[in-house]
Amino acid sequence: MRHWEPIDGNLGAPRGFRAAAVAAGIKKAAGALDLGMIFSDAFETTAAGVFTTNLVVAAPVILSRRHLKESHGRCRAVLVNSGNANACTGQAGLRVAEGTARAVAKALGIAPAQVLVASTGVIGVPLRLELIAKQLAALTKSLSVENTAAVTQAIMTTDTFPKMCVLRSELSGKPVHLAGIAKGAGMIHPRMATMLSFLTTDVAVGPRTLQYMLRSAVEVSFNRITVDGDTSTNDTVLALASGESGAAVVPGDASRAWFLAGLTQLCQTLARMIVKDGEGAKKLVTVEVHGARRPADAERIARAIANSPLVKTAIAGSDPNWGRIIAAAGYSGAKFDPNRVDIRVNDFYLARKGLDARFDEAAAKRELEQKELTVRLDLHQGSASARIWTCDFTREYIDINASYRT
Amino acid sequence: MRHWEPIDGNLGAPRGFRAAAVAAGIKKAAGALDLGMIFSDAFETTAAGVFTTNLVVAAPVILSRRHLKESHGRCRAVLVNSGNANACTGQAGLRVAEGTARAVAKALGIAPAQVLVASTGVIGVPLRLELIAKQLAALTKSLSVENTAAVTQAIMTTDTFPKMCVLRSELSGKPVHLAGIAKGAGMIHPRMATMLSFLTTDVAVGPRTLQYMLRSAVEVSFNRITVDGDTSTNDTVLALASGESGAAVVPGDASRAWFLAGLTQLCQTLARMIVKDGEGAKKLVTVEVHGARRPADAERIARAIANSPLVKTAIAGSDPNWGRIIAAAGYSGAKFDPNRVDIRVNDFYLARKGLDARFDEAAAKRELEQKELTVRLDLHQGSASARIWTCDFTREYIDINASYRT
Repeated sequence: MRHWEPIDGNLGAPRGFRAAAVAAGIKKAAGALDLGMIFSDAFETTAAGVFTTNLVVAAPVILSRRHLKESHGRCRAVLVNSGNANACTGQAGLRVAEGTARAVAKALGIAPAQVLVASTGVIGVPLRLELIAKQLAALTKSLSVENTAAVTQAIMTTDTFPKMCVLRSELSGKPVHLAGIAKGAGMIHPRMATMLSFLTTDVAVGPRTLQYMLRSAVEVSFNRITVDGDTSTNDTVLALASGESGAAVVPGDASRAWFLAGLTQLCQTLARMIVKDGEGAKKLVTVEVHGARRPADAERIARAIANSPLVKTAIAGSDPNWGRIIAAAGYSGAKFDPNRVDIRVNDFYLARKGLDARFDEAAAKRELEQKELTVRLDLHQGSASARIWTCDFTREYIDINASYRT
Repeated sequence: MRHWEPIDGNLGAPRGFRAAAVAAGIKKAAGALDLGMIFSDAFETTAAGVFTTNLVVAAPVILSRRHLKESHGRCRAVLVNSGNANACTGQAGLRVAEGTARAVAKALGIAPAQVLVASTGVIGVPLRLELIAKQLAALTKSLSVENTAAVTQAIMTTDTFPKMCVLRSELSGKPVHLAGIAKGAGMIHPRMATMLSFLTTDVAVGPRTLQYMLRSAVEVSFNRITVDGDTSTNDTVLALASGESGAAVVPGDASRAWFLAGLTQLCQTLARMIVKDGEGAKKLVTVEVHGARRPADAERIARAIANSPLVKTAIAGSDPNWGRIIAAAGYSGAKFDPNRVDIRVNDFYLARKGLDARFDEAAAKRELEQKELTVRLDLHQGSASARIWTCDFTREYIDINASYRT
């Protein structure tokens, strides 16, 4: 077994997968790609999903959860649209999701329960089934390895760049792959499943193992990012494993840890891309908390800092205002002694033992001006730590969100 | 007993109080008022205080809590500075607060434990005692009823207007007063004591009653507002009662409810002013949740909506994006059935039973364009309700906070 290495490619790099995308007229902009299909030719394909924890759940989330269960993790197709979330659309919205799955199943010659659906876009507006239905023949016909790249475009909303990652490794002498795409860029918050992300692999993995590993990987990747503290009604991560590499994850074997490491690397890479492309974001910020008494304390502090609009605007302005950082830690709910806290940006000390480190202002500003930076707290009170990714908070976030619907 | 009516005036309207303010050079801007003193001439003055719930607590908060306890609620003077929070300044910072109180006590001829101190401004920078000490003689000499207005100026930081409210009523045939000043305008969040606010009254109130009533009034006023979700290290509300009207609140008497009503009206007026002047805010938004099963559910939903950057930016753009409102309710942690929720802006329906109300877009925009508006959710699942005040989220918030220190 080897390490997982990033390579160029797309969702079709893992053998067995084909995909396609079209402009179905769901997005307002004419000609914009807004409907994508991912399909595995392998009969033995397994599937797993992790979904939003929002109480208000969109129709595609309800249906995909149900299909994963009914098919016992044997789904083979994903249909995704952007431009409309199909959320808060009631029974009619659920019927649209069901009708979509049935039509896709018919076009592909599989069972409806083998189809997963996902949507992103405006909430509360009816999604028109006929816009989707009339594209299915064309989509099915154009399924190919090359066209998988177009799906990455079709799921974008306010994203400014497509998010894709492909990893390669070797198992039992056979080349194997993991690939994933994702979309951001607002309504990004921990305590969620995450935003839309679709993962493919040609490693053979049993459905229960895949589900368990996907949940583990999501916990330390998509669930550790925040853009604005808002959790969506549509967050969805789906993974399909075709098994077409001929190499399999064997329970109780070292291949398990190896596969989980790859899946985690894939999810973390995509999660960081989402934060980097956070609405209006100019900087990717890693918040690290070390030396906490309990992991829950470390996480609580890291999340409070990563979510603080005052910290995030200070970072946007490259202002070494560490008082806001310790104040956020202070209201996080975690217990700690403020008089023992060190605060660094990268390796540059802003505060030692809760007091100003009497730093050089210009040097601190230089650290904060970097496009990728780390805010590091050491509590010196234990050995637990946590890491959260966030972005800075700029005027552009406001501009993007003040008139999203119009 | 009469209702409490708003009148023109200042902190000196309640008899017994004098105040003064000077430019001490703590703020960077030359000549800016940054040091204020409030003093009650009445020997029988009682005092109460409510403070931040942040774990990281500024030196003046530590000292004022201690003095309220040591004096058994018999404090007579408040010294407040802006430009420096005296927070995260360690033992040296506490010694500065103690030195300030001792010097003020000496200048006024009272005990140090009768002096309360408060600070607001940058965190982590040492506050220079000598800047304060050398002003005390001048401050004491210029104490007057007229000069109380200047204190309102001296506590401002990013505030764009001074916040003051005076109420008049009658008790036992005697005219009585309640007055208050406050400052905002960032680091405003529920679950706090609140930002700086100083209240005076000439009604005679025992210290324990005053403390109890202040806590009650703060709970439904300053603790129900949010600008950015950040809780400060310095939040402080102080109340002084001189008793100089000759009228007293009598335990077990209707005067108790009457005084609490006035105090609540005073605090709510000041709290709404703080939100209205929230950094960059253009609109004052009241979030009301009705029909919840439990009050805690109603409050949780109202707070989630009031804190959502996506909701607040949509309101800034007058975008009737009710999907973001119901999504925030959904991640609040409260249990409810989304299919029964009605959402209104003022009296205009955006959603009924969780579905789009098929409203007129232009008419909805007109409702949202108002300077003061109400977002109203009816869950139709019980009889509990809650109300939170917030503001819209504009580019100016970012501009103000990206370079606060520099």
